[in-house]
Amino acid sequence: MNSFGRLFRITLFGESHGPCVGVLIDGCPAGLPLSEPDFYEDLQRRRAGGKGTTQRVEQDLPIIKSGLFQGRTTGAPILVIFENRDVAPEQYEELRYLPRPGHADLVVSRKYGGFNDFRGGGQFSGRLTVGLVAAGVVAKKIIRPLRVMAELKEVYGSKDTEAAIEEAERKGDSVGGIVECKVIEVPPCLGEPFFDTCESLLSHIVFAIPGIKGIEFGRGFEAARMKGSEFNDEPQDLSGRTRTNNCGGILGGMTTGNEVVFRVAVRPTPSIKRVQLTVDTRTGQKSELLIKGRHDVCFAVRIPPIVEAATAIVFADLLLLEQRRGRVYGERD
Amino acid sequence: MNSFGRLFRITLFGESHGPCVGVLIDGCPAGLPLSEPDFYEDLQRRRAGGKGTTQRVEQDLPIIKSGLFQGRTTGAPILVIFENRDVAPEQYEELRYLPRPGHADLVVSRKYGGFNDFRGGGQFSGRLTVGLVAAGVVAKKIIRPLRVMAELKEVYGSKDTEAAIEEAERKGDSVGGIVECKVIEVPPCLGEPFFDTCESLLSHIVFAIPGIKGIEFGRGFEAARMKGSEFNDEPQDLSGRTRTNNCGGILGGMTTGNEVVFRVAVRPTPSIKRVQLTVDTRTGQKSELLIKGRHDVCFAVRIPPIVEAATAIVFADLLLLEQRRGRVYGERD
Amino acid sequence: MNSFGRLFRITLFGESHGPCVGVLIDGCPAGLPLSEPDFYEDLQRRRAGGKGTTQRVEQDLPIIKSGLFQGRTTGAPILVIFENRDVAPEQYEELRYLPRPGHADLVVSRKYGGFNDFRGGGQFSGRLTVGLVAAGVVAKKIIRPLRVMAELKEVYGSKDTEAAIEEAERKGDSVGGIVECKVIEVPPCLGEPFFDTCESLLSHIVFAIPGIKGIEFGRGFEAARMKGSEFNDEPQDLSGRTRTNNCGGILGGMTTGNEVVFRVAVRPTPSIKRVQLTVDTRTGQKSELLIKGRHDVCFAVRIPPIVEAATAIVFADLLLLEQRRGRVYGERD
Amino acid sequence: MNSFGRLFRITLFGESHGPCVGVLIDGCPAGLPLSEPDFYEDLQRRRAGGKGTTQRVEQDLPIIKSGLFQGRTTGAPILVIFENRDVAPEQYEELRYLPRPGHADLVVSRKYGGFNDFRGGGQFSGRLTVGLVAAGVVAKKIIRPLRVMAELKEVYGSKDTEAAIEEAERKGDSVGGIVECKVIEVPPCLGEPFFDTCESLLSHIVFAIPGIKGIEFGRGFEAARMKGSEFNDEPQDLSGRTRTNNCGGILGGMTTGNEVVFRVAVRPTPSIKRVQLTVDTRTGQKSELLIKGRHDVCFAVRIPPIVEAATAIVFADLLLLEQRRGRVYGERD
Repeated sequence: MNSFGRLFRITLFGESHGPCVGVLIDGCPAGLPLSEPDFYEDLQRRRAGGKGTTQRVEQDLPIIKSGLFQGRTTGAPILVIFENRDVAPEQYEELRYLPRPGHADLVVSRKYGGFNDFRGGGQFSGRLTVGLVAAGVVAKKIIRPLRVMAELKEVYGSKDTEAAIEEAERKGDSVGGIVECKVIEVPPCLGEPFFDTCESLLSHIVFAIPGIKGIEFGRGFEAARMKGSEFNDEPQDLSGRTRTNNCGGILGGMTTGNEVVFRVAVRPTPSIKRVQLTVDTRTGQKSELLIKGRHDVCFAVRIPPIVEAATAIVFADLLLLEQRRGRVYGERD
Repeated sequence: MNSFGRLFRITLFGESHGPCVGVLIDGCPAGLPLSEPDFYEDLQRRRAGGKGTTQRVEQDLPIIKSGLFQGRTTGAPILVIFENRDVAPEQYEELRYLPRPGHADLVVSRKYGGFNDFRGGGQFSGRLTVGLVAAGVVAKKIIRPLRVMAELKEVYGSKDTEAAIEEAERKGDSVGGIVECKVIEVPPCLGEPFFDTCESLLSHIVFAIPGIKGIEFGRGFEAARMKGSEFNDEPQDLSGRTRTNNCGGILGGMTTGNEVVFRVAVRPTPSIKRVQLTVDTRTGQKSELLIKGRHDVCFAVRIPPIVEAATAIVFADLLLLEQRRGRVYGERD
Repeated sequence: MNSFGRLFRITLFGESHGPCVGVLIDGCPAGLPLSEPDFYEDLQRRRAGGKGTTQRVEQDLPIIKSGLFQGRTTGAPILVIFENRDVAPEQYEELRYLPRPGHADLVVSRKYGGFNDFRGGGQFSGRLTVGLVAAGVVAKKIIRPLRVMAELKEVYGSKDTEAAIEEAERKGDSVGGIVECKVIEVPPCLGEPFFDTCESLLSHIVFAIPGIKGIEFGRGFEAARMKGSEFNDEPQDLSGRTRTNNCGGILGGMTTGNEVVFRVAVRPTPSIKRVQLTVDTRTGQKSELLIKGRHDVCFAVRIPPIVEAATAIVFADLLLLEQRRGRVYGERD
Repeated sequence: MNSFGRLFRITLFGESHGPCVGVLIDGCPAGLPLSEPDFYEDLQRRRAGGKGTTQRVEQDLPIIKSGLFQGRTTGAPILVIFENRDVAPEQYEELRYLPRPGHADLVVSRKYGGFNDFRGGGQFSGRLTVGLVAAGVVAKKIIRPLRVMAELKEVYGSKDTEAAIEEAERKGDSVGGIVECKVIEVPPCLGEPFFDTCESLLSHIVFAIPGIKGIEFGRGFEAARMKGSEFNDEPQDLSGRTRTNNCGGILGGMTTGNEVVFRVAVRPTPSIKRVQLTVDTRTGQKSELLIKGRHDVCFAVRIPPIVEAATAIVFADLLLLEQRRGRVYGERD
């Protein structure tokens, strides 16, 4: 399913080298001020250009095609489209029969009987995250005063991210990294039992971002090496908040009111400038492959705004859900 | 939402110290042989009794109340109920106003205006996972010949799990652990774009299990410290499978045909036999708390059959979804 | 799917002659006073006993198994079970190979490969509506002060319903009827574009009730024979309400604030006390069939509380959905 | 929710006088031949031009923006857009404060706090059905060899539809009508218990079409005036099919294999060329209103291709669902 969310629901569409990519947003409240320039900042952050990012440079010009009237959302579905301009599909023709290691080329082709758009991964390309970032811009407005901030913390095991990327670039290789995300000004009680916990929804959407291989909340994997007496967070007051925040701002799947904190592991970019071995699908024989194209050395660099968007989308949905829970029957004495 | 799944869809219900817990399973194919003894093995594995588990011992006797006829599933919803017998709700009366550190007591109470069943965590108790395990038993039958196997790999950072637990027990403390899960005999191409990738669905349901703080697939967080030339898995043949399996059997969100492998981080049990600090909800003042009750020293011990169930539930759904794809229009030449 | 609803979501389970029938209700707000006697009145109205109803008399004793604590809903899923007591499955043994005209026996058997519980229609029995009525009791509490009232208006084309039923009974035949439903104290603006209009949701759930063959809102089919100048309802004031109510209280799929009015056509009970022709599934040959069992002469008599329940369920969901809309961004000047 | 369907899932977007209308189709199988001219016939049938239809003439030129590659569907979401060209929003400026009788203007404005696009009904316009027809074109291909055929049977109570329309046009009035829809070559067993019966799904989507006030299957409302001995359809053979078809090809909510037949009641067009009374929203006072614009005299004329599309969409979903039920466990002896 190319959709996510219950009340704030988004659907992604498009292909890497097709006519466009974009997102359809259903369930955005009416009256939210919105215009195309609102998207520029996050799109720019996601876009190529920095150290270690691909030379494909799309303008990423958002066009709002519906759901807007006189500068505000109307409550109707919002369609945002990005025309693809800097496409170079011909470069993929030679890859048609040579599945790229680390990519899903072979399974995609099998899944869709060979009818998939194979150019640049088609619908399985990271390019689809443009639509995700666009939806995130809308979500970020809905969730105010909550704010989401993600940053690249580590590349190839080092906090000196630039150096690690340069080194990899020089060798025609690629590297992975760690991105950390924080949400502040979070009200308590967001998250739904049993299956739609905060962690469940956040991890669901985060693992939809191509190339993520791990996620941890609060102390995360470290928690497995801790004692209860160390890990337990003492309640601070009656608000739900705790004095320490080992749990990452989430208890029982719900926000406590503390900062929500999680980290994601980003794999190294699969496309590298080195000869790799693959299988030629015409012959079934082993074959060498040198990917030309234009690719990030470390696409973790571009992940922060994407993770922010994903996070904002989850919180927009959880806030709308919580609003309608309503204290219809008051409070128990 | 207390439901999970699209075609194989389960809903959990019940409370820790209410009349029962259980699961309602919708979308199970007709004709599957099923009887109550089929549930015993996994329930026994989940149940208390071993080193480091609570002394509360529920019989966990499953009663199939619908969806079965002459020993086989009918295609109708399957209701499985477990009557709670070894309840001791009175022990929670004194906890009513003393939220337990590491538990969601305070946020649950706020979320539901104080109307929640606070005894033993009510619907937020790990006891609800009995229903999850029951659904997993049905799912495991559906996914054959796929098989799911989870095991406890590490407790408090040590592979000598028993020793670490004994040590914690002696100190009235608790400890966390790492559980690893493998799925074998997996066909390629399971998983759906964009949002319902294998990792997305697995992490969604796994984080619904109380106490999980992290998940990683294949090399996971290690991938963030690797180069592309190391991490990329070379295609083995045209099946989708790869020679190495750094990606954990999942590329582009879909199974490759290799083993699916992931690990989860389990926090230490929040209830410990030590005095902890909390806030008295009657006064808003700091207060000491000594939890009596009966609790696991390391509930990670009981997680493997629960993670297996969760995993089988995801694969049952993905397999049913994949069937429909049908090569209605043949294969592209 | 045996579920219905987005925020107030119900799932029906059970079989006519299996251990039980019932309903699982997810999304009920916390704090609603509820106890088993609350269900008695509507269950009694649905139950057999009156003129033209079956002699099978189930006690229909509801047991609330979860979601309740100290007399109030907790926000957790509410499981309501009805044990079947007056079952007589043996009477169906001879029907196993003789599909009953007007019933779905043959298609059900084909759909489920013969694994379905064929006794009394199994999950396709009208008995499942007990769970629907139970969910309706909860929904009716949620929607207050809205009220839903349905009544039998016509049997076999006559307003003298008792006479028409007696006549049919004497002849061992059955008859259909018309049920009208009204909802009062309706706020305006309930209903969602594009697909979840009031009419869409009401008709969806009403056609799930076995034996309904038509539905019309307001003037309904008569509207097709009217002019715009006759049919259009003039706005009464700024509330949304209109002076006349030809549209049945729904414009553009949303409530106007007027009474919502609709009528449903109920077919004659398929099981009659006359010899009918069918096909023997063992031989494929034509065969005579005399259904024994116990059946309603006119099950339209029992439809009003069922339609009321269905209607209340829809409005509970729409009210919860509407709450979330919130005038977060105020009103446009 | 602006979406419909489980496996074949569509979302409509756009506004009557905004930049565009269209549809996003998720879940279409890969490999289906598709091109823009495939849409022309049904769009032309829906389009204005004939007797009694509006003078607004949109080209209705479909542009496929995603999900297509080398002339075939890829399995990815299909976005079809129609740019609005013949817009005349200024004519609605004067209607801004004068809600049109028979339209939802007042409730829409209240629902969305006045932020809705009021021009021509915005997202509540019949213009949105262009996207529905487009989705229907794709669905019709999927369901082959099933075929759907709808036709206008009656206008203002008369089978002489042209005469009734001319008469109404002369008087500046509008008229309603009856449309009948048939589905042939239907396999048995399509439809899902309990809530997703054929009738439930068909009525759900049909009532989403603006202006529908009633639906009946098979003998429909007439069934309420029949005896069981008349209405029951005798099984024809073991296929599921029956000799007569009073039930309209649906028993127990599932197709029998006979023709599926239903009729819908279409109200008269609300916009008429006569002075009507309304309430001025600036003053709350009664006011006269003469709608200029361009409108159908009898929009029932344009409903057949829309009802066909809606029907095909339901059957595409039901077929995909049924495919994956799979006789995994064979047949019971």
